[in-house]
Amino acid sequence: MRIVAKDISNAAREKPSEEVEVKGWVHRIRELGGITFVILRDRSGILQLVLENPPDITPETLIRAVGLPALNEKAPGGVEVKVHSLECISKPIGDLPYQVNGDPAKIGIEAILDHRVLSLRNPKIRAIFKVQSTIIEAFAAYFRGQDFTEIKTSKLVGSGTEGGTELFEVEYFNRKVYLAQSPQLYKQTMVASGLERVFEIAPAYRAEKHDTPRHLNEYVSMDMEMGFIESEKDLIEMEKGMLAYIFDEVALKNRAELEMYQATVPHAEAVFKAPIVPYEDALKIASAEAAAAKTAGGRIFDINPEAERFLCDWSLREHGADLVFVNEFPRRHRPFYTYPLDAARTMSFDALFRGLEITTGGRRQHDYNALLEALPKFGLKPENLEGYLAVFKYGCPPHGGFAVGCERLTQKILGLSNVKEASLFPRDRKRVAP
Amino acid sequence: MRIVAKDISNAAREKPSEEVEVKGWVHRIRELGGITFVILRDRSGILQLVLENPPDITPETLIRAVGLPALNEKAPGGVEVKVHSLECISKPIGDLPYQVNGDPAKIGIEAILDHRVLSLRNPKIRAIFKVQSTIIEAFAAYFRGQDFTEIKTSKLVGSGTEGGTELFEVEYFNRKVYLAQSPQLYKQTMVASGLERVFEIAPAYRAEKHDTPRHLNEYVSMDMEMGFIESEKDLIEMEKGMLAYIFDEVALKNRAELEMYQATVPHAEAVFKAPIVPYEDALKIASAEAAAAKTAGGRIFDINPEAERFLCDWSLREHGADLVFVNEFPRRHRPFYTYPLDAARTMSFDALFRGLEITTGGRRQHDYNALLEALPKFGLKPENLEGYLAVFKYGCPPHGGFAVGCERLTQKILGLSNVKEASLFPRDRKRVAP
Repeated sequence: MRIVAKDISNAAREKPSEEVEVKGWVHRIRELGGITFVILRDRSGILQLVLENPPDITPETLIRAVGLPALNEKAPGGVEVKVHSLECISKPIGDLPYQVNGDPAKIGIEAILDHRVLSLRNPKIRAIFKVQSTIIEAFAAYFRGQDFTEIKTSKLVGSGTEGGTELFEVEYFNRKVYLAQSPQLYKQTMVASGLERVFEIAPAYRAEKHDTPRHLNEYVSMDMEMGFIESEKDLIEMEKGMLAYIFDEVALKNRAELEMYQATVPHAEAVFKAPIVPYEDALKIASAEAAAAKTAGGRIFDINPEAERFLCDWSLREHGADLVFVNEFPRRHRPFYTYPLDAARTMSFDALFRGLEITTGGRRQHDYNALLEALPKFGLKPENLEGYLAVFKYGCPPHGGFAVGCERLTQKILGLSNVKEASLFPRDRKRVAP
Repeated sequence: MRIVAKDISNAAREKPSEEVEVKGWVHRIRELGGITFVILRDRSGILQLVLENPPDITPETLIRAVGLPALNEKAPGGVEVKVHSLECISKPIGDLPYQVNGDPAKIGIEAILDHRVLSLRNPKIRAIFKVQSTIIEAFAAYFRGQDFTEIKTSKLVGSGTEGGTELFEVEYFNRKVYLAQSPQLYKQTMVASGLERVFEIAPAYRAEKHDTPRHLNEYVSMDMEMGFIESEKDLIEMEKGMLAYIFDEVALKNRAELEMYQATVPHAEAVFKAPIVPYEDALKIASAEAAAAKTAGGRIFDINPEAERFLCDWSLREHGADLVFVNEFPRRHRPFYTYPLDAARTMSFDALFRGLEITTGGRRQHDYNALLEALPKFGLKPENLEGYLAVFKYGCPPHGGFAVGCERLTQKILGLSNVKEASLFPRDRKRVAP
C-alpha cells in the first residue's frame, strides 16, 4: 500500500520496522561516499531515498520504491527511506526540454506555458495552483455560508450585454453566437427569479487584443449577485468578508506554498479596514502620489494601472491595508445598467489589491421604466435589448453584484509578475496550445 | 432588518411582540370574510401574511411588509404575520405570460425555458437548482477529501482529442479554434505533471445534432482524473464513494426539494452493492430483459438507451440498486487512448443510474510507445496528436478518470423527464436564448 511523502515521517515514528512503498518522480540524484541519495517527488511533497547501489534512473523517471523509513534530521522533512527495492514505472523519452527542479525564473514564462506537464513538476510552480484551488473552494464556501446558491449558466449567448465589441464568435449550427463576457444577465435573472443570492465560478471571454501581464482572453470569473441591497456599499461589505475568508483559508491550507513565494496574505482586520474612496477623491489621491513620485506630470485623470498602484501604496501607508475600494464611478465610465447615485455618479466600485484591479461591481438598475429611460443616453435601443429588459418586467428587487478574477487574485496573493502564470492553460492572441 | 420566511416561526416563538420586516414576491392572494391572506415567497420559502384591508397588489408584485409574527397551525409552516404596513418594491409590467404558482407540468418545457425569470419562481422548478447546487458542492467536497486538487482548464482548444467531428468552431483572432468536448487532455496533463489527483467542474460542448430528452449541446461536466490506479475498478470504487456522498448530502440538505418530486436518493449501502457487469454479460442481461418484456425482438446488440433502462431495472430487482456499472467495453467502442484489458476489451466503464448513462470513464494508456503503436489501428497519425503525445513523454503514471454529467445526475435524482429541465439556460439546435 503506497504511502505519500508527507506521511513517511509518521510511519518512521510509529512503525519504523515496517516497510513502506512510495511512488513518485525522481526530483534529484546525488552520489556521496558510495551511497546514492534520490529525492522523490509526489503530490504531497518530496522525500529522500537512500540506496546502496546506484540505480539506473534519470531525473523525472517515475519510480516505485520499497524500504524502511528512518528519522534523519539532515534529510528534507527530517525523514528518509532506506530502499531495498526500486523499479521504474515510466521513463522519460529523450531529453527534457529543461531542468524541472531549478528556479522557475530561469525557465521563463514561454517555456513554462509550452510544457505544462513539466513546469508543474517544479514545486514552486505547482504551488500556484494549490493556492488557486483553495481560493476557489473558499469563494464557494463563503457564499454558501451566506445562503447563496451556486449556479451554472450558458457561455453561449446571442449577443453581448455590453455591446457587440470584443466578443468571440462561435459557429453554432449555421448561426453565429458569442462566448459570454460575463454571466451578468444570467445572475441578474436568478436574483429576479427569487433565488435572490447566487454565485458562479466559470470561464469568461474577452476578445481584447491586449497582450499585457494583466490580461487573459479566457479567465475564471468568480461571480456573485444578490438582491435587496441599498447600494454598492453592501457589496463591498460582502467582498470584504469574502476576501478575509479566502485569505484566512489560504494562510491555513497553503502555508508551505506561501513560504515558497515569501508571500503573506492580509489579516482579516486589514481587509475590514480597507478604505472606500469615491472616484473623484481617488483621482486626487493618485495625483498627489504621482506628484510625490515625480511621475505622470503629477496628474492622474483616470483609474488606470498606474493609479491602481498609487492608490494601493497610499492605502497600505495610510490605512495598513494593501486593498482599497474605489466607488462612485462616473456614469460615462460604467455600462447603462449601472444604478445612478445622482446625475453624474453611479453606485459602482472596483476593488484594487496590491496595485491591481481584481473586482468590478455595482448596484444595477432594477426598475424597468428607469432602464427604458436610460437606454437612449447610452445610444442603445430597447428593441436590441429585449432579452435583457424582460428580466425586469415582473417584479425585480434592488440588486447588484461583483466579479473577482480568479487568476488575478492568485497572482497578487503570490506576487507573480504575470497573470498568465496563474492560468494553467492561458489563452492570448498568440497562444491556443497546449 | 429583514427576516426571511423560514425564520419567522422562530421569531413568533421567541419574540412575538416584536415587529418583523419581510420582503418577497406575492405568490397568491385570497380574500376570506373581509380579511386578505397573502402568501409571500422569498428565497427561503413561503409565508402567510394577514391584512385587514385589501392591498393594491397582484401576483408577482415584490413587496415589503411589517407586522407581528404569530403561530397559527392552519397557516403554511405554522406561522403568519399580521401586517401593519405594506409597500410595493416593484410591480409587474403588463400581464404575466403564465401563472407562476401552478403545476409545472401545465406550463410546459418551452415556456419554462423561454421565461426562466418567471418559471424559477415556481418552488418546484426552483427546487431543481437547489438540488443541483448541492450536487456541485458535494462532488467538490468529496474529491477534496480524497486529496484532489480543483483545476480550471481552457475551453478553447486547437483540435478535439477525439477527432474533428462534433466540435463547435470559434473565430479566435483570425484563426479557428474549437470549444472543448471535455477536459480530458488537460486532466491527464495534470496527473502526469505530478498533481496526481485533480477534478474540474466546467462547461463542455458537443456539436451533436441530436435533439432528445437526454442530450444537451452545452453541459456541466464534473470530471476527475487520478494517477496510480490498477484498472477501471479503482475508478468505479471512487465513483461509488462519490455518489454515496452526493446522495447523502442531497438527502440531508434538500429534503423539502426531494419531497416536492416525491423523490428519494439511494442509500449508501445500495450504491456500494451496485453490480459491475462486463459488457458482454450486460448485453446478455439486457437481451434477457428485452425477451421477457417481449420487445426489441428479445435481442440487444449495444448498450443503447433501451439497454440502459433494462440493465437498471435488472440491477434494482436483483441487487436492490438502481445503479449499475458496465465495464470492459470492446476496443472498437472506445477511443484510442483507452487502456486495453486484452486484444478485444478495454479497462473502461459506464455508470448507469435509473436507466440513464451518467458517467463514462476508464483507465488511459500512459505509455508513450504503446500509444504510438495504437494510433494506426484507429486510423490516427502521430503528427496530428503531438500535443496529446507530449503529455506521456516524461514519466507518466498509470491513470484514469471519469466524467459525470451534472444535469443528467440532477435529472435522475428528481425523476425529470427531460435533461433540459435540469439546465438553467439549455442550448440545443434551436435554442440559444435566453
